[in-house]
Amino acid sequence: MKKTALIMAGGRGERFWPKSRRSLPKQFLSLTADGRTMIQLTVERIRPLIQMEDIYISTNRAYRDLVLEQLPELPPENILCEPAGRNTAPCIGLGAVHMAKKYEDALMMVLPSDHLIKYNQMFLNALKDGCSIAEKGSNLVTIGITPDYPETGYGYIKFRPDESDGNAYAVDRFVEKPDVETAKEYLATEEYLWNSGMFIWKVSTILSNIRSFLPDMYDGLAKIGEAIGTQQQEIVLEKVFPELESVSIDYGIMEKAQDIFILPGVFGWDDVGSWLAVERIRKSNESGNVVTGNIITIHSKNNIIQGGNKLIAAVGIEDLIIVDTEDATLICDKGSTPDIKLVLENLKICNREEYL
Amino acid sequence: MKKTALIMAGGRGERFWPKSRRSLPKQFLSLTADGRTMIQLTVERIRPLIQMEDIYISTNRAYRDLVLEQLPELPPENILCEPAGRNTAPCIGLGAVHMAKKYEDALMMVLPSDHLIKYNQMFLNALKDGCSIAEKGSNLVTIGITPDYPETGYGYIKFRPDESDGNAYAVDRFVEKPDVETAKEYLATEEYLWNSGMFIWKVSTILSNIRSFLPDMYDGLAKIGEAIGTQQQEIVLEKVFPELESVSIDYGIMEKAQDIFILPGVFGWDDVGSWLAVERIRKSNESGNVVTGNIITIHSKNNIIQGGNKLIAAVGIEDLIIVDTEDATLICDKGSTPDIKLVLENLKICNREEYL
Repeated sequence: MKKTALIMAGGRGERFWPKSRRSLPKQFLSLTADGRTMIQLTVERIRPLIQMEDIYISTNRAYRDLVLEQLPELPPENILCEPAGRNTAPCIGLGAVHMAKKYEDALMMVLPSDHLIKYNQMFLNALKDGCSIAEKGSNLVTIGITPDYPETGYGYIKFRPDESDGNAYAVDRFVEKPDVETAKEYLATEEYLWNSGMFIWKVSTILSNIRSFLPDMYDGLAKIGEAIGTQQQEIVLEKVFPELESVSIDYGIMEKAQDIFILPGVFGWDDVGSWLAVERIRKSNESGNVVTGNIITIHSKNNIIQGGNKLIAAVGIEDLIIVDTEDATLICDKGSTPDIKLVLENLKICNREEYL
Repeated sequence: MKKTALIMAGGRGERFWPKSRRSLPKQFLSLTADGRTMIQLTVERIRPLIQMEDIYISTNRAYRDLVLEQLPELPPENILCEPAGRNTAPCIGLGAVHMAKKYEDALMMVLPSDHLIKYNQMFLNALKDGCSIAEKGSNLVTIGITPDYPETGYGYIKFRPDESDGNAYAVDRFVEKPDVETAKEYLATEEYLWNSGMFIWKVSTILSNIRSFLPDMYDGLAKIGEAIGTQQQEIVLEKVFPELESVSIDYGIMEKAQDIFILPGVFGWDDVGSWLAVERIRKSNESGNVVTGNIITIHSKNNIIQGGNKLIAAVGIEDLIIVDTEDATLICDKGSTPDIKLVLENLKICNREEYL
C-alpha cells in the first residue's frame, strides 16, 4: 500500500527565543551540528520509506515560504496552509482528504516537525511495524516513548502488556499530562509510554473515525476534499476550515476510538523542548561547554553558548545558556528555562514586536 | 604661586575589556551615569583650582586625537605625547620641563586620569593643603588614601603620626604591594595609607630631585626642555625620550628623597580597577542589578549589565558582569574579573588584533 506522511509544522514555539521568533519557529531552526533544520531532518529521516511527492507539510500560511526554501524538492502543492490554527484533528483531517484525493487509499504517517531522533534506522523499523499493523485492519497506531523519568509535560498512553501484536500493544487509554506523583506511579507500573504525537493509520481509517466521533468536522473536511484540484479549492478551504472545531486528535479521536495499538519506540527520541536539549544533541568539550560560533571560554564549565560571528567571552561562568542573535542576547540560568516565556510576555506587554 | 597639573593618560588598561580597547583605554570611557569620560571628569574636578591653559595631559601619541576630541577646550600644545612609554618618572619629568619653560617656577599637581572621586570639594581642599606644604619649601607631597580593607593591589605609604604639618604627615617610607598578611598588619597599625599616585610639588623641587637621584634622566630632560618652542622640539623629544630610563616616580625618587609629606585623602576615592567598580559608582535597582542599555531582567539579581541598543534578556542569573559591545560580549562571574586578562592573552596569542 502506498505510504504517505503528514508533517505538522504549524507550531510557533517560544522556548527557543531569541533564535526562534514568530517569523522563524523552532521547526525551521538548526540546532544540530550539521546545520540542517528540524523540518529538513524530519523529511530526510522518512525518505527511505516515502516518496517526496507523498510527503505533505501542514503549516501556517506565514511559513509557506520558509517551507519552500528549506524543502526545495517538495512539490509546492504538498504544502497545506491552514487558514487558521485549529489544533491537530482538523490539521490531520485536512491532510487525510488531500491523500484520499490522490490515492484511493494509502497509509498515512503523522509526524511532528520539531523532534529529533538519534537512531534513524530503528525509527524507520518502528514506522514499518506500524504500517503493517495499520494496513491489516482499521487500526490506529501510535508510537510511544519509553519514559525514563517522571516527566509532567507529556501526555501518557497506557497499554495492555498481555495484548500484543508483534512489537505493538493494544492501547488501554490516553491520559493527560500528570502531576509528578502520578507520573511516578505511571513509571513504576511499566505500562505507560509517553505520547510522542506520532501516528500511523490508513487514510480511510482516520477519516471513518472522524466521521464517527467528529461528524461535523467530517462534513467540513468532505467539502474541502471535493474542492481540491478545482478553482474553488482555496475559497472553500478559507471558508470551511476556520469553522472546524478546534480539538486535538488525542481528545477528539484517540481517547474514544477502538483498535488502537502502540509501538514502544526505542530510537533516541528527543522533543527538543528547551535550550537544555542542545546539551543532549550536541557534543560538549572537555569543560562540558557546548559552544557554537566565535567563543572564548576561560574557567567556565557546563554552559551552552550559541553565538555567531560576534565574539563571546565567557569567564568563570557555569551552568548558563547564552544565545546571541543579531538584535537580542539571552543569558539564562539552566534552571530557569521556563522563565524565558516571561521575557516574551514582557516584550508583548511593551509592544516590542520587533523582538517577538 | 601658579598652579599647574599634569594628568597622566597613557594607560592602556585591559580590565574594562570589551569596552576598553587598545584604541580606547579606560580613561576615555564613561563609566558613570552622566556620560562624561574619566579624563573629562578628572579635568572638570580640578578646574576650580587650575586654569585650562595650565593643565597638561601626558599620553601616548595614539590617543592624541581622543584627548583633543574629549577635551576641546584644552590648548593642543598641552597634550604631551610620549614617543614611547617610559613609566612615570620620565613622564612627570617631561611635564615638569614644559611647565618650567612656561613659568619660572610653579606648583605642579600630578594626577591619574582614570580614578573617580565622589566628594570633589574635599578633594580640592586636599589639593589646596598640598599646595601650601609644597609651596613653603622643597617638599614632595603625596595624597594617600585611608585603607578600609587589606588590598594587595596597591602600594602603601608609611607615615609618622607624630610628625605632622597641618593635615599632612611626614612620610616614613614607600612600600611595594604587600601580601595579604602584611596588608592586614599595615591596616592594624593605622600608620599606612594607600599610594594613590597623586603628587604635589614645585616644578623646581621635582626637577632638583630628578637631578639628584636620576642624573642621566635629568640631562635628557634638560635637552628636551631646551628644544621646547623651537623647530627641533619634536626631533629632540623623539630622539632623547625613548632613551630615558624606564622607572617609576615611586622607585626612582619617592623611595629615596627627603622631605616627603602625605595628606590622608578622605574624598570618596575609587581607582575603578575593574568592572566591579561600576556597582560602587552607579545606582542599582531594587533587585541589585546595575543596568545600562536595552535590558530585560527576569528573576535576576546583583548583576552588572552594560549594553547598548541590542536587547539583553537576563533570566535567573546572579552575580554576573555582562558587557555588550558592537563586536564582542563579555559574560563574567563577579569573582572572576582578574581572569578577563586571560581572554586578552588568548586573543593576542591567536593574533585577533581586531578585538584588542
